[in-house]
Amino acid sequence: MIRDLILRNRSYRRFDSAVKIDLARIEKWIDLARMSPSGRNMQPLKYAVCTDEKINALIFPHLGWAGYLKDWNGPAENERPVAYIAVLLDRKLAENHYCDEGIAMQSILLGAVEEGFGGCIIGSVNKSRMAKVLKLPENLEILNVLALGKPAEKVVLDTAENGEIKYWRDENSVHHVPKRPLKEVIIKTV
Amino acid sequence: MIRDLILRNRSYRRFDSAVKIDLARIEKWIDLARMSPSGRNMQPLKYAVCTDEKINALIFPHLGWAGYLKDWNGPAENERPVAYIAVLLDRKLAENHYCDEGIAMQSILLGAVEEGFGGCIIGSVNKSRMAKVLKLPENLEILNVLALGKPAEKVVLDTAENGEIKYWRDENSVHHVPKRPLKEVIIKTV
Repeated sequence: MIRDLILRNRSYRRFDSAVKIDLARIEKWIDLARMSPSGRNMQPLKYAVCTDEKINALIFPHLGWAGYLKDWNGPAENERPVAYIAVLLDRKLAENHYCDEGIAMQSILLGAVEEGFGGCIIGSVNKSRMAKVLKLPENLEILNVLALGKPAEKVVLDTAENGEIKYWRDENSVHHVPKRPLKEVIIKTV
Repeated sequence: MIRDLILRNRSYRRFDSAVKIDLARIEKWIDLARMSPSGRNMQPLKYAVCTDEKINALIFPHLGWAGYLKDWNGPAENERPVAYIAVLLDRKLAENHYCDEGIAMQSILLGAVEEGFGGCIIGSVNKSRMAKVLKLPENLEILNVLALGKPAEKVVLDTAENGEIKYWRDENSVHHVPKRPLKEVIIKTV
């Protein structure tokens, strides 16, 4: 059931860094993005994948983690992602990627979750530094970075009350994500 | 398997307009979007749903269909969508919706496909006319419209050659969508 998969597909930021992910597996997940809808079918998105421990260590400092958790600077050494996918716009193909990016990343993450992995979409990226680490040519613009691994944290959905949507961690280190109730997001039915 | 669902989730533009969709069913699909990741967990997207035949007829002229098919002006009367979801940005909540839109629409469409329905993301929308039909308040900006129904066309994926990505219809009215091969979209693995 897609509902179960979507429920399990939380934004995970702490992983068991002892559990690696094969490159072939990640390529299968990207294949899901490749087969997903694309505006005007232009398919201007490209992907750079990193599973190399040494390069992962160079990538990590250029990512921002969980803006609302002011007392947390990101995953500890043994909780870090074991792989990254930089989602890129190929400006030689198009200047506009419409909503392709979200579609593609949702497909990738659902593929990962189905196989017991998970990840987080990171928008807070030092893009120029990251492009240097990956030695990207100029036509490829970094849109987002997917951090991937075997989740090592519990994430639960709560119902947002009074529009309070900031995620938080409880005393057992469970990550709570308040979602607006359905009656607030469906504004009209005719 | 998510792969099967993603493969079945094609952009359908011709439907069996005799098969209606219950509002309750569509609300379940929107609930999938509600539970999907959102940048900063802001959840600024809202949804207006229409299943009313008369209002559907007012919506239809404000949508553009399949730009590459120059000889086709959109679905005939008996092939038209039976429901629409206008995906909206609530500007009272945020000016930026990051990649939420694609994530949300992919979740909705996967829910629809799982239950034997399907749809198409339409970006070519006369937004001011559409907002009038739906009587939307000023703070709600239309981002895209999802057209939904029981698919009544065959859509197949081909492999794009020489960057030729325009979709086309063959003599049996099968819709062909050329997708760039995986080795072109994964530009680097380290």
